[in-house]
Amino acid sequence: MDISKHLNSEELNTKDKQPLYLQIALLIADKIQKQILPSGTKLPPERELADLFAVSRTTAINAYRKLEQQGLVWTKVGSGTYVAQARDAESLFEVPWPQLFTAYPQNPLASILRDIVSTPAPGTISLAPGMPDPALYPMETFTELFNHNIGRTPPSDFGYIPIEGYNPLRRAIAAMLSEKGISASTENIITLSGSQQGLYLLSKVLLEPGDYVVMEASTFIGAIQVFQSAGARILSLPCSEKLSLELLEDYLIRYRPKLLYMIPTYQNPTGRVMPAHERQNLIKLAKHHRLVIVEDDPYSDLYYGEQPPQALKALDSYGGVVYLGTFSKILFPGLRTGYLAGPPVLINRLALEKQLIDLHSNNIAQWLMAMFLNEGKLAGHLTTVRREYKKRRDTMAKALRRLCANDIEFNVPEGGFYFWCKLKQSGTSQQLLQEAVKNRISFVPGEAFHTVPTLDNEFRLCFTTHNEAVLLESVQRLAKTFAQLTKKNRANDAPPSSVWPII
Amino acid sequence: MDISKHLNSEELNTKDKQPLYLQIALLIADKIQKQILPSGTKLPPERELADLFAVSRTTAINAYRKLEQQGLVWTKVGSGTYVAQARDAESLFEVPWPQLFTAYPQNPLASILRDIVSTPAPGTISLAPGMPDPALYPMETFTELFNHNIGRTPPSDFGYIPIEGYNPLRRAIAAMLSEKGISASTENIITLSGSQQGLYLLSKVLLEPGDYVVMEASTFIGAIQVFQSAGARILSLPCSEKLSLELLEDYLIRYRPKLLYMIPTYQNPTGRVMPAHERQNLIKLAKHHRLVIVEDDPYSDLYYGEQPPQALKALDSYGGVVYLGTFSKILFPGLRTGYLAGPPVLINRLALEKQLIDLHSNNIAQWLMAMFLNEGKLAGHLTTVRREYKKRRDTMAKALRRLCANDIEFNVPEGGFYFWCKLKQSGTSQQLLQEAVKNRISFVPGEAFHTVPTLDNEFRLCFTTHNEAVLLESVQRLAKTFAQLTKKNRANDAPPSSVWPII
Repeated sequence: MDISKHLNSEELNTKDKQPLYLQIALLIADKIQKQILPSGTKLPPERELADLFAVSRTTAINAYRKLEQQGLVWTKVGSGTYVAQARDAESLFEVPWPQLFTAYPQNPLASILRDIVSTPAPGTISLAPGMPDPALYPMETFTELFNHNIGRTPPSDFGYIPIEGYNPLRRAIAAMLSEKGISASTENIITLSGSQQGLYLLSKVLLEPGDYVVMEASTFIGAIQVFQSAGARILSLPCSEKLSLELLEDYLIRYRPKLLYMIPTYQNPTGRVMPAHERQNLIKLAKHHRLVIVEDDPYSDLYYGEQPPQALKALDSYGGVVYLGTFSKILFPGLRTGYLAGPPVLINRLALEKQLIDLHSNNIAQWLMAMFLNEGKLAGHLTTVRREYKKRRDTMAKALRRLCANDIEFNVPEGGFYFWCKLKQSGTSQQLLQEAVKNRISFVPGEAFHTVPTLDNEFRLCFTTHNEAVLLESVQRLAKTFAQLTKKNRANDAPPSSVWPII
Repeated sequence: MDISKHLNSEELNTKDKQPLYLQIALLIADKIQKQILPSGTKLPPERELADLFAVSRTTAINAYRKLEQQGLVWTKVGSGTYVAQARDAESLFEVPWPQLFTAYPQNPLASILRDIVSTPAPGTISLAPGMPDPALYPMETFTELFNHNIGRTPPSDFGYIPIEGYNPLRRAIAAMLSEKGISASTENIITLSGSQQGLYLLSKVLLEPGDYVVMEASTFIGAIQVFQSAGARILSLPCSEKLSLELLEDYLIRYRPKLLYMIPTYQNPTGRVMPAHERQNLIKLAKHHRLVIVEDDPYSDLYYGEQPPQALKALDSYGGVVYLGTFSKILFPGLRTGYLAGPPVLINRLALEKQLIDLHSNNIAQWLMAMFLNEGKLAGHLTTVRREYKKRRDTMAKALRRLCANDIEFNVPEGGFYFWCKLKQSGTSQQLLQEAVKNRISFVPGEAFHTVPTLDNEFRLCFTTHNEAVLLESVQRLAKTFAQLTKKNRANDAPPSSVWPII
């Protein structure tokens, strides 16, 4: 049903002294109690609600939050807001779940991410998730490995195994890292249910609420969320041409941060590569302060020109660098297999924590990965994906320069998954996204990556998920969006990037 | 090297007023600093250290803990205590990891569990882990499913998927539960990286430090650990013939516990089945108090006679029962695939938490399980394992009655994995274990399952992991151990179950 007719801004009393969000919440609560909006009804997205009542998006969000607290509506991630089950006399005995939950940090990211992952219109090209192209997943190789080895693997390998991981895989990972100049043996490795789990475990083992963590100003969303939900305070290093070691040292002296989180190679989202000399200077400084560095390295195998410099972990002379790797970006995310390399005393403590969470990671994926590495299948696969992704990067860069040069600036990344673009005109990338989805193209607005709130005129495009034809189409849709926005901005004189108060 | 000669009780000054554990720690520290015990040396197990210095095990544990705090030794789970790297001038810059770690609840369980999982002598028969027999894992069926379906599955199924799980599997689980009288649809299901993860997520979402949780007096170790590490206080329901609803109601009124955790069917470790009328009465009481019940149900498909009563979740008329299931016990643990059934508002909140931990569970295992269920493979497999495990249970029961009737009493379980045995004579099951491992047989002492410390004269034997011949051999070794202990106890008059003070 079209429910917008039940949500009419004329019903709001403009002379009422109650905050607008409360008035809206009361109005919706009334319709729910009268069953004009029956249980199960999907309510308008926050943005639409804001439009309907001509209020800010924050007011709309707060109205829904109020209704959620009263148990009248509930929000399903990736889907929207729904009217909850009516609570009649019988239902007095029902468990009031939302009232039982522990506090959940309501950061603005959550709602941005919900927008990103929510079901897009059919035919939408999403350049949002950082995902390898499914057409390149080496499923045939995995099938061969499965069939060739299932008969000769003792079934007990599929029983309970050590928390630290399937030993053949731990050994294979240690060997792989050693080839990259990272000295590691089995006892230095713990396998993880995706490298995200490494971040979570580190936060449990190292962080108390109020501790400081240093991060690049724009960085991986999952890391920001984990550290914030551990109650950490974030110290932000600007993303610029050069890493400011002076500022970092200042942080180290003033705040004694528990760790520095970095993606030194093909950074997410900026694509930056930290040069070799900068890596050496960083290690020197870190050693002096005995600073723990968490080096997240999902992309370094995906270079499209020269190989990048060695990992920070390869330079680690003080045992303070913790290295996180994953097979999600170079093979496929569904493996959910990542790993962490560090000193045995840390591996051991992480294992105690991991035991509570999942006992150990999935054996089938670990078994397959061990064979994939041991039978030398990785090098060939990397050659294939590097060749293909390089072509896509070049095609996309050319198209962006041809069609969007007036609207954005960007650097061509030397590796990894992303173009990091900056708007040349006024306006925010959130506004751009709102227009872009109408043209069935989506991406991640820069705000999602921010460790500190700043003006948001950047956004991230992933160029690896789709083939060149689709990428070209996506740039055309983006160009169309820019053309529409320019027209609109000319017609509409309001400054587009005002910050609205939360009322 | 034989290091016991360096650890000599004669070097202890009996007139010294320092606590014994400190004296021992100082003595060992001295040998480490003089490099008599070089870095990497494996130190004796706590039990042996206690014997060497003729002190209690607790004193030995405290000595090691002191050395660990000083960074002189470190403990590797499942392996032992080692001398740490020497810290010379250069190593002043090394990161002092143990000093950086957040507090870890040092409960006595940890050390018991370490004993259980630590590498046993070659040829030891372990009846300790609750593990299905690897010889019965249906790897051939999984291989067929893999080959038959890999070509027709879109590769994107192996990319990122919703946090709540692989939808075909969620649907298949909902259908399976519906057949068991549990009304569920896809939105009621979240798939988990093992059901252990369900316990962890529930603790994150429902428990604040100091909250109360009701548990059976002896119950699943993993649940105790998760709730304790969330800072919960445990209220204990005695494991007896009949569940005391009076005591539970008293708890509900006095302490308003956040949840009740139960394994109603083939309880771990006791094997008890809650009768149907008791389930109804429990639900009635829980509904009245709007009590959240977490029903853990890993074993109910493994019945060896009549089918057990319906799950509590099937009786849930107030939306308060959360159901946890797993494929680890009926198929194989390495799938690391469990699931939770509950109201959508709970599923949604759990998903937000799970996102931080591992984004989503492993696709390969979820894909295989979805096909296994959809192609109707489960029923046949269950028939096979039920038939086999029933034979093992009967063989084991007969052997225990024949060879150990004077030493233990036990009930024959109607399903599940375990015999729960009680010593008839004085002595603790820890002491029994210490003797038993010398005869190369191991099991879990009852203490590991206790939610409250009590006298420990019970222990758990898992009868599903090994075939009948091995089970018979294991009972013979157990009988031999009893014979030796009886002899020893006659020779030695000291009361064997004294509680030693921690000094």
